[in-house]
Amino acid sequence: MPRLITAFSNPLVKDVRALRDKKHRRESGLFMAEGLRILTEARENGRVPVHLFYAAGTRHVLLDCLVAEVEAAGGDVVETNTDILQKLSGKDNPQTVVGVYRMFDTSLAKIDRAAAPLWIVAQALRDPGNLGTILRTGDAVGAGGLILVDDCVDPFSVEAVRATMGALFTQRIAQAGWDEFLGWLRGGAGQLIGTSLDATLDYQEPRYAAPAFILVGNEAQGLPPEYEAECDLLVKMPMLGKADSLNAAVATAVMAYEVINQWRRG
Amino acid sequence: MPRLITAFSNPLVKDVRALRDKKHRRESGLFMAEGLRILTEARENGRVPVHLFYAAGTRHVLLDCLVAEVEAAGGDVVETNTDILQKLSGKDNPQTVVGVYRMFDTSLAKIDRAAAPLWIVAQALRDPGNLGTILRTGDAVGAGGLILVDDCVDPFSVEAVRATMGALFTQRIAQAGWDEFLGWLRGGAGQLIGTSLDATLDYQEPRYAAPAFILVGNEAQGLPPEYEAECDLLVKMPMLGKADSLNAAVATAVMAYEVINQWRRG
Repeated sequence: MPRLITAFSNPLVKDVRALRDKKHRRESGLFMAEGLRILTEARENGRVPVHLFYAAGTRHVLLDCLVAEVEAAGGDVVETNTDILQKLSGKDNPQTVVGVYRMFDTSLAKIDRAAAPLWIVAQALRDPGNLGTILRTGDAVGAGGLILVDDCVDPFSVEAVRATMGALFTQRIAQAGWDEFLGWLRGGAGQLIGTSLDATLDYQEPRYAAPAFILVGNEAQGLPPEYEAECDLLVKMPMLGKADSLNAAVATAVMAYEVINQWRRG
Repeated sequence: MPRLITAFSNPLVKDVRALRDKKHRRESGLFMAEGLRILTEARENGRVPVHLFYAAGTRHVLLDCLVAEVEAAGGDVVETNTDILQKLSGKDNPQTVVGVYRMFDTSLAKIDRAAAPLWIVAQALRDPGNLGTILRTGDAVGAGGLILVDDCVDPFSVEAVRATMGALFTQRIAQAGWDEFLGWLRGGAGQLIGTSLDATLDYQEPRYAAPAFILVGNEAQGLPPEYEAECDLLVKMPMLGKADSLNAAVATAVMAYEVINQWRRG
């Protein structure tokens, strides 16, 4: 049976609200996801929340499924109200369902590169929206996951989770320093593909081979030259206007679709 | 000679700060852009600010050029400090230069479709970041501009202007209702290309012809069926994962690069 919480002063409400801060996520090993769609994606990928909050009066068969699974797993189901959900999410129009999950193990050692033909690697990515959009694109192009290199935005931040639209639960995520990543990459097969403003090779010229690792750099600085030097292929996209760069998530998507389009042609 | 403003209570500071609200932008016919890079893009495209604010101590040849042009145009140059710039922009780490511009005429009648082979049309787009990213992509693919159909986010909002990275000043922008747009479109040459989850035609199959109009729908709902029915081509991108959609700006970019890649092959 769900328990009822309607008091702002409830300690659990305070703890969950605190998950909007990275420090509290790290300390507790928990993060928050919002919305029936994302929570259902999580459930379908074997992730069941530790705490499940829903607004009293919410009726949906997918919510019934969630409640059943959380209860079967011995988790905590909480019926609450919109004001509390607003406090948890920090949004004026909160989703009617919020889940609290255990963070995943994001060590590189957990990544099996043979599990997918394509992987995305982001270096010093700072914008949670970009991170979420890249994960969502990764899902769409059949990538295995996203490897976050150097100091990237936290993939478990509320904003990033929101922007993934559920792909956080369908894609693998790893976090590593550049040297660690490079050592891991060179310990097996893999083509490292960087995009660069300085490249002379058009991105449609090379034939890409699996497993392909698309490397995208920081939003403002792009890739450091020494990282570019490690790429097996350094390519550029046509830029016909006055702008000298694309948004990082857009560049990743354009590159990834070229790779899978080549493979679709066989 | 620049005048000096350092008082929060200064009426101009209050007026410019108010430009973060759509209501005040509409009433004044003005909007705000931040950063030397974006303001220089504006200047190179013939847009000179009515008011130019810069932090005392800022030294840059591009700022000197801006100051000279604003003064030559009889505009208002204001030397100020970081606290005031912070108040204007609403950011903790504000840019050191802020410009206030007259809004552009965004009537559809001002658009010359023959000026570019490619145009982007967004319907009920709500996210300022997406709008900015789409304008930036439009610049990169050599589009003529962005036509905003139905109730879209304001392209002159601070967040949208920021996300364009200057493309607001290199791309044309129009705003129109759907019926008005459709009447205008059918009054001349133009292929209307929609992307849809329900389409059966792969986006790499058709041969695209200029002027091509790429139509992108609302972030949550996509295009209304009756809008899809008006498209000359309705295509789908491969979706290999569990997600059923791409981010709107990503889908626009993937579609636009397919179109220009076909044209690059001749």
